[in-house]
Amino acid sequence: MSKQQIGVVGMAVMGKNLALNIESRGYSVSIYNRTTSKAEAVVAEHPDKKLVLTKTIEEFVESLEKPRKIILMVQAGKGTDLVIQSLLPHLDKDDILVDGGNTFFKDTMRRSAELAESGINFIGTGVSGGEEGALKGPAIMPGGQKEAYDLISPILEQIAAKAPSDGEPCVTYIGPNGAGHYVKMVHNGIEYGDMQLIAESYHLLRAVAGLSVEETAEVFREWNKGELDSFLIEITAAALTKKDPETGKPMVEVILDRAGNKGTGKWTSQSALDLGVPLPLITESVFARYISALKDERVEASKVLPKPAAYSFEGDKKELVEKIRQALYFSKIMSYAQGFAQMRTASEEYDWNLQYGEIAKIFRAGCIIRAQFLQKITDAYNRDASLKNLMLDEYFMDITANYQDAVRDIIGVAVKAGVPVPTFSSAIAYYDSYRSADLPANIIQAQRDYFGAHTYERKDKEGIFHFDWYGDKGEESI
Amino acid sequence: MSKQQIGVVGMAVMGKNLALNIESRGYSVSIYNRTTSKAEAVVAEHPDKKLVLTKTIEEFVESLEKPRKIILMVQAGKGTDLVIQSLLPHLDKDDILVDGGNTFFKDTMRRSAELAESGINFIGTGVSGGEEGALKGPAIMPGGQKEAYDLISPILEQIAAKAPSDGEPCVTYIGPNGAGHYVKMVHNGIEYGDMQLIAESYHLLRAVAGLSVEETAEVFREWNKGELDSFLIEITAAALTKKDPETGKPMVEVILDRAGNKGTGKWTSQSALDLGVPLPLITESVFARYISALKDERVEASKVLPKPAAYSFEGDKKELVEKIRQALYFSKIMSYAQGFAQMRTASEEYDWNLQYGEIAKIFRAGCIIRAQFLQKITDAYNRDASLKNLMLDEYFMDITANYQDAVRDIIGVAVKAGVPVPTFSSAIAYYDSYRSADLPANIIQAQRDYFGAHTYERKDKEGIFHFDWYGDKGEESI
Repeated sequence: MSKQQIGVVGMAVMGKNLALNIESRGYSVSIYNRTTSKAEAVVAEHPDKKLVLTKTIEEFVESLEKPRKIILMVQAGKGTDLVIQSLLPHLDKDDILVDGGNTFFKDTMRRSAELAESGINFIGTGVSGGEEGALKGPAIMPGGQKEAYDLISPILEQIAAKAPSDGEPCVTYIGPNGAGHYVKMVHNGIEYGDMQLIAESYHLLRAVAGLSVEETAEVFREWNKGELDSFLIEITAAALTKKDPETGKPMVEVILDRAGNKGTGKWTSQSALDLGVPLPLITESVFARYISALKDERVEASKVLPKPAAYSFEGDKKELVEKIRQALYFSKIMSYAQGFAQMRTASEEYDWNLQYGEIAKIFRAGCIIRAQFLQKITDAYNRDASLKNLMLDEYFMDITANYQDAVRDIIGVAVKAGVPVPTFSSAIAYYDSYRSADLPANIIQAQRDYFGAHTYERKDKEGIFHFDWYGDKGEESI
Repeated sequence: MSKQQIGVVGMAVMGKNLALNIESRGYSVSIYNRTTSKAEAVVAEHPDKKLVLTKTIEEFVESLEKPRKIILMVQAGKGTDLVIQSLLPHLDKDDILVDGGNTFFKDTMRRSAELAESGINFIGTGVSGGEEGALKGPAIMPGGQKEAYDLISPILEQIAAKAPSDGEPCVTYIGPNGAGHYVKMVHNGIEYGDMQLIAESYHLLRAVAGLSVEETAEVFREWNKGELDSFLIEITAAALTKKDPETGKPMVEVILDRAGNKGTGKWTSQSALDLGVPLPLITESVFARYISALKDERVEASKVLPKPAAYSFEGDKKELVEKIRQALYFSKIMSYAQGFAQMRTASEEYDWNLQYGEIAKIFRAGCIIRAQFLQKITDAYNRDASLKNLMLDEYFMDITANYQDAVRDIIGVAVKAGVPVPTFSSAIAYYDSYRSADLPANIIQAQRDYFGAHTYERKDKEGIFHFDWYGDKGEESI
């Protein structure tokens, strides 16, 4: 019996669709699922495909060409460890395991090191684009041994999404061990930020500009023709036009305002906190989901907590809508600036040598945050590969110069009207902090030295100092 | 040779001061330090004290009355584990180890379970108040076995700070295993928030109200006479009056605006993220320290990033200063509301049965966040022990009713003037989110269901649903 070129473990929807995607590019694919009936169903559904059903791990491994290429699409966490353990006794040196799950990057780093002891290559890869993307072309973010990546890259390049402008596949080698899953994690964090920014914009369009749901759909459709052109704006516009068959109301009006999450936004924030990177916007968007989840408390609170003084917007509505658009784009820039700064710090911390322009490039299609705007980020890193912060690039600087007044106006209006804009607000705070040569952190350092002798530095000379705040001994050099 | 009543391991400044504090209440104290010379120096410095020097772990343990009471004041983390391992072979069942370090609460939970196997009691206790507090009276937050706490509580009550209003000692049993260290962690997170709020207020007083450093000292001194009466406002006022002996400038003008941190604020945010609790204000204050640390980047950015349109405040200065005060108090309330909500969720998660009114009570003296205001929190929980959020208490609701317009004005002014106010902004966003029966999280749920089939709930009936956004099959119940 001839051997298959690649194998996929896990026949839930993502694994199934990825297997079908690979098969559609002319590859023969072995599939395996712990519960065999699930794999049988996939074969039965697609009798015309070169999918080879295997019923045991041994049979699955035996069915593959060497060095074996095995993609795991199983539940992240313990599930992944169990599958790896069951595969390991049957694998040979130089085989390649690819974990395509939403795995925490530190788990990937651990597994990479463990498998390396047996000479097994391990690629931890982000796969973004949902079910649809897995089937038709996701964005792929693989991290691991470069030589192993080179052996699977022909397949990955074929199954990946292609950027609309130049047809380039949305996959590139990200870096060693956990780099791919890290970049996928930040991608998801950025996705949280984008979604919250859109939600705040919608809230303002409804509550301050007074638009109907249908009118907001029109606004997002318009926005999608310009700088904001992106998948999330597009589906927001489309979702806003859908009606509930049961009540006839717009679907968004019947959907409960309690946002769920799968934890990748949280991981992004926790990693930023560990690395010492300011990531306020994405973190505010995670907290915004958490506060939305307190629906019952909010309903109770809404009955008793004092409202702001009555406010109604009196200016030009068209101008207001345009300002909201500018605020959204400005804040989006701040969010990506933070996310890319986080990747830069992580790259130094974990020695990954990330290529930011390449990363932005593969985000251009397939993934959830795909947008025209990503090309601007690639351009920025092409102009200066060592750019410290995206804001400092000429294109983004032009935008901030032109749009910052709108952001400031919109926040003023929102805060007056009592419409919560946590991410818009944190965007301007980040911008104003970053462009401040002097911040009031000197007060914090004075306090820390006062109550805890934590010492401070001086503006006018090198060294570490402590001041005798309680007595009269003045300053001493530590 | 007679035995000592209690022992202290670790003669760095916190351990030394705590030993002296205990001795000053009439107890005999054995002391031990890995490097004996450090312990010898303490005895030599204080020849009149009942401190008994011991030179080996065996000698130290042997010198103590049973059940032994041993306080560890050593470096948190590995250092603590090493000391425990060296003590363990010499201890007996029912002995009591007390870890007074700034330990991560999960480490305390682990050690508590490990030591329980040998029948050793373990108390993880927060000790707040710095060197001065350790010597004269800290706030103490002990968690562990209640029966063990009862055996050491007479000592703890004597060495703790006493609340000025009623003389009650600032110590109470917090709860099992990691509860004490958790509460200390949140205390520190709240401290980060308080300090950042003061820093933003200072920034506004200087940059918008145009006050000199000396004038801001006067403002803080005034504020300390009212609702804001607290240790941190007091030392801020005092610090602002200090002059640099070298340059004659105010000390705060020579101190570099790059804030350090020891990680407890970060832990607080990370725990909130794990628990699903919105904690934006403290988290913004952690990120504000991180952004302050990017001094070199900020100086460079300040030269090129576009500024907002020129702004100068034209209104009444006195009124402005009063509004800043109101914004500070309002935001402080939001911060404590978040911190106490976090403790409530942690208490449920870890089964600690925390008593929030008692916790606020022991914060009234000794610790860094001590303030008149804490009594208001105790009062609120006395009125309603099951209060879901501090904002819902009548006292705090009165304040928010009266002060929210000022907060909104101040944020408007700050954002216009380009003065970053990340924590003020997040305070109002939290308030406006919490009092909103409806938030735009319905948009986020629509998006998530659109691209990832993540499902949603409905406002009008129970159940989990998915909508066929791409096709025309409408809604299905999951």
